[in-house]
Amino acid sequence: MDTPAVVVDLDVVEANLTAMAGEMRSRGIALRPHAKTHKSIELARMQVAAGAVGITVGTIGEAEVFAAGGIRDIFVAYPVGPFGEKAARLRALADACDLSVGFDSVAGMAAVAAAVRGVARPPRLVLEIDSGGHRTGVAPGLAGAVALECRAAGSVAGLEVVGVFTHAGHGYAGPDARDDAAEQEAAALGEAAASLVAAGIRVSVVSAGSTPTALRSARGAVTEERPGTYIFGDAIQVRLGSMDVGAVALTVAATVVSTAVDGQFVVDAGAKILSKDTAAYVDGYGVILGWPDARLVRTYDYHGVAEVPSGSARPAVGEMVSIMPNHVCPVVNLVDELVMVRSRKVVGRWPVDARGRNG
Amino acid sequence: MDTPAVVVDLDVVEANLTAMAGEMRSRGIALRPHAKTHKSIELARMQVAAGAVGITVGTIGEAEVFAAGGIRDIFVAYPVGPFGEKAARLRALADACDLSVGFDSVAGMAAVAAAVRGVARPPRLVLEIDSGGHRTGVAPGLAGAVALECRAAGSVAGLEVVGVFTHAGHGYAGPDARDDAAEQEAAALGEAAASLVAAGIRVSVVSAGSTPTALRSARGAVTEERPGTYIFGDAIQVRLGSMDVGAVALTVAATVVSTAVDGQFVVDAGAKILSKDTAAYVDGYGVILGWPDARLVRTYDYHGVAEVPSGSARPAVGEMVSIMPNHVCPVVNLVDELVMVRSRKVVGRWPVDARGRNG
Repeated sequence: MDTPAVVVDLDVVEANLTAMAGEMRSRGIALRPHAKTHKSIELARMQVAAGAVGITVGTIGEAEVFAAGGIRDIFVAYPVGPFGEKAARLRALADACDLSVGFDSVAGMAAVAAAVRGVARPPRLVLEIDSGGHRTGVAPGLAGAVALECRAAGSVAGLEVVGVFTHAGHGYAGPDARDDAAEQEAAALGEAAASLVAAGIRVSVVSAGSTPTALRSARGAVTEERPGTYIFGDAIQVRLGSMDVGAVALTVAATVVSTAVDGQFVVDAGAKILSKDTAAYVDGYGVILGWPDARLVRTYDYHGVAEVPSGSARPAVGEMVSIMPNHVCPVVNLVDELVMVRSRKVVGRWPVDARGRNG
Repeated sequence: MDTPAVVVDLDVVEANLTAMAGEMRSRGIALRPHAKTHKSIELARMQVAAGAVGITVGTIGEAEVFAAGGIRDIFVAYPVGPFGEKAARLRALADACDLSVGFDSVAGMAAVAAAVRGVARPPRLVLEIDSGGHRTGVAPGLAGAVALECRAAGSVAGLEVVGVFTHAGHGYAGPDARDDAAEQEAAALGEAAASLVAAGIRVSVVSAGSTPTALRSARGAVTEERPGTYIFGDAIQVRLGSMDVGAVALTVAATVVSTAVDGQFVVDAGAKILSKDTAAYVDGYGVILGWPDARLVRTYDYHGVAEVPSGSARPAVGEMVSIMPNHVCPVVNLVDELVMVRSRKVVGRWPVDARGRNG
């Protein structure tokens, strides 16, 4: 195998898809996985085949790729705008799939309305709620008032507000954060949904989602979950306790290229494949499997530098190692293909169809 | 313009290329820019046209792209191996251009020799020296001994050691680091070259390079400089004092997508276009031009969150902003094309030909 390469164990992927779909089915919660993690049409099809109602994406560009790949039901869980050239793209997208999009402002809703006016099936609009991550979304108590104001701006295109969604990004704050984050997600969505109902808006979508919180939502609190990372796993999920290390399906294969400096070895996987993603509760830039004493403490564009304690063994120049990335989403976005394996044998190379579709 | 997009001012690029080429010419130092920054065949041609003797790359994959694009003289400034499938690729590359490659181990040299044995023009081998960055490369005092041992391993393919190279990555340690780093670069190369000469090896290449140190090398201490970032600039170079803000040619165009949370605004440029690159001496994940009070404190895959002080103005949803990235190299590697402008008018879209060529 030529390195560096992103290697995906298809057996583990299948187990992850089946497990999450089963959990959601047993709770009566719709599963709408976030496809930004894998950006692969084939993997999205597998998710739908395993029971997902459709997929979630982060950008219009991702939605275009998956719609062209035959995925019917797509939710752009993002305040899409759409401004500038995106207006025409959103209009075409509404014709190409069953589309839902997020919004959290009158300006955003007005832009969607201007873009899709007159289309056969206008997208469903879902109001984003801030459940404590303080990124995007309105405060739960304001949801009804904002939804009414936005609905007025969208009425010109017959747009309907169908519900609320949130992402508890603060579930990534640390290993103890996800229980509280899941509770806050459910509470914020409950308050927001009630606020919409009080404003006379019928609520059919109550959507939450992240891998750390997906299995913690109380039954009945949400209609839908949108985890993404669960398909592959990564070091952050393992450290958070939301996935076992055995459920990690994706690794970066790398080759040792230098041991010239004492106390370390250098691999050919740097920031341009591992990304610079890290967190306070993980160590360095990834976990080098099979070398528990090695710490991947520095990455440069094409170098990963692993320190080893004085006197410890280190792999030789030319030896291959496998690295579990900290955060898998940016890693997938840095390569054109995934090397698919079963029982350590290569069974295919799958394109990262939506790589780089940032907007 | 559809956002997010990577926008390059061609007038500023030309000024940067001319200035660096002029400085190097006046010092009698060959300029061999690192093309990993731009990954663009057209920009590499412009560098050669402005006086560069050839280019530097970090991977065999980059070299393949530039050789196919007509760049003749290419130095892979990396201990290439080449192991596995890379052996055949290096062999083909040796036939496709005038090739130099780095090494810092017997195993690396032996792999090069095995790969290129019998080619018409074997690559020149350049020994990597550790000048204080402690990444790759041998200690300067060991250079002669290592070079002799490696040369023996390479003699089967007629490989010649032609000199030494280093990269003073520690010049990025902070605004006060580059003078010392440049001195250490020159001193380490001088010691290493002397060590080679004492071992009976003729030295024709003494190669240093980084944008912070390139203009600080003492005349006569090096034969060649390999800066990369100088073509575009970025916030790190500005903070280091190695480039003026007016020399920054590349920005990320983004659109404000949410102002729902007080005290901040959110743009559609996140980590999948800005990368997560940062440094202790820069603030957050990039500089939002024209909004000096805004601090880009958090990035998610598709969101950039800018905090503004309480009561400060913030741009409205739908408004465009320009962001100066912290580190430009990973940003370019995240997009398929560069939007080229002159005087703020789009004059072309140039492909990032070597994007994702990580190995």
